[in-house]
Amino acid sequence: MQDLPLSLQHLIEQLARLPGIGAKTAQKIAYNLVEMREKEAVDIARAIVEMKKKLHLCSQCHFLTEEELCKFCSNPRRDPSVVCVVDTPRDLLAIERTREFKGLYHVLHGRISPLEGVRPQDLFIDSLEKRVDAGGIEEIILANSPTLEGEATAVYLSKLLQGRGVRITRIAHGVPVGGDLEFSDEITLLKAIEGRHTY
Amino acid sequence: MQDLPLSLQHLIEQLARLPGIGAKTAQKIAYNLVEMREKEAVDIARAIVEMKKKLHLCSQCHFLTEEELCKFCSNPRRDPSVVCVVDTPRDLLAIERTREFKGLYHVLHGRISPLEGVRPQDLFIDSLEKRVDAGGIEEIILANSPTLEGEATAVYLSKLLQGRGVRITRIAHGVPVGGDLEFSDEITLLKAIEGRHTY
Repeated sequence: MQDLPLSLQHLIEQLARLPGIGAKTAQKIAYNLVEMREKEAVDIARAIVEMKKKLHLCSQCHFLTEEELCKFCSNPRRDPSVVCVVDTPRDLLAIERTREFKGLYHVLHGRISPLEGVRPQDLFIDSLEKRVDAGGIEEIILANSPTLEGEATAVYLSKLLQGRGVRITRIAHGVPVGGDLEFSDEITLLKAIEGRHTY
Repeated sequence: MQDLPLSLQHLIEQLARLPGIGAKTAQKIAYNLVEMREKEAVDIARAIVEMKKKLHLCSQCHFLTEEELCKFCSNPRRDPSVVCVVDTPRDLLAIERTREFKGLYHVLHGRISPLEGVRPQDLFIDSLEKRVDAGGIEEIILANSPTLEGEATAVYLSKLLQGRGVRITRIAHGVPVGGDLEFSDEITLLKAIEGRHTY
């Protein structure tokens, strides 16, 4: 590193600050940027600045948007009586890819995790309570991820929102479609058997 | 993708243009940038622009520098009579890490590769010839990488520079130190046996 010109060292340090990008990957990306034409590299830099300038969270569901409301909350053909709660914008996109869910969303932007110091008040839970209390919602689907933290968050929310006249549901656990039963872990299999249904 | 705000889609497309960064990684990096504080993300963008503005190639050896000559070419304690030819700046740094080589370098910025359309005239070979012809060089060490393209480049250079009163050498092939002989490929082992020396 100390053999490199300062501006390149600095770039590598900056890239290494991205979560999930280690020192080696940061170096690889930096060298690629060195070898790119100036215009192309500057276009990438500009795209970062533009995105930071334009992008913010939907004032209702906290998904990413460049407007006041996101494309789901502002779509009159979506059903506002069903709200699907997800941990992250990427989880929302995963559900959207099913092309089946036609309700609205609520993005918490994280999961309750005492180990990582993420408390309920660090997530967009306040605004979810307010949405429920404002009326018009009949069902809250808790689609938190099936991890320890996701489960904890779902349990917390189910208790918090109980008794407010809203149906609270949790997405089903089970064996993934196309997966090999043989390689499913015990807890998933147990959940799949518990959640069995008649044809 | 089409569910994402335009500025984020655009950023993902820009990041995916980096060689070795696939669509998935570009998305991951983009989301990380979304979640970063504005200042931190803009610092990364700025580091790219700064690097592109300041960095260029050493006018003598074509290593990366912010000055006219790189830190090796401008160092009076390096021996200008031995020049080590490498394919890329990263190869130069690898040799520098041995802390043993005290000569100068010449960075070709690529390897001859008919398959990828890289011809001798696409590399910094002209300037290497001129350096040799200018005098003062006693040995050229060909440290091109031990790949098909690297070998082809080394052979090309050795023929080109023959008969100019300069000793042309090639780095040794053999089993890597600390490696397991059992797992060495046949060609490496053959080269190691051919290159054997007496104690």
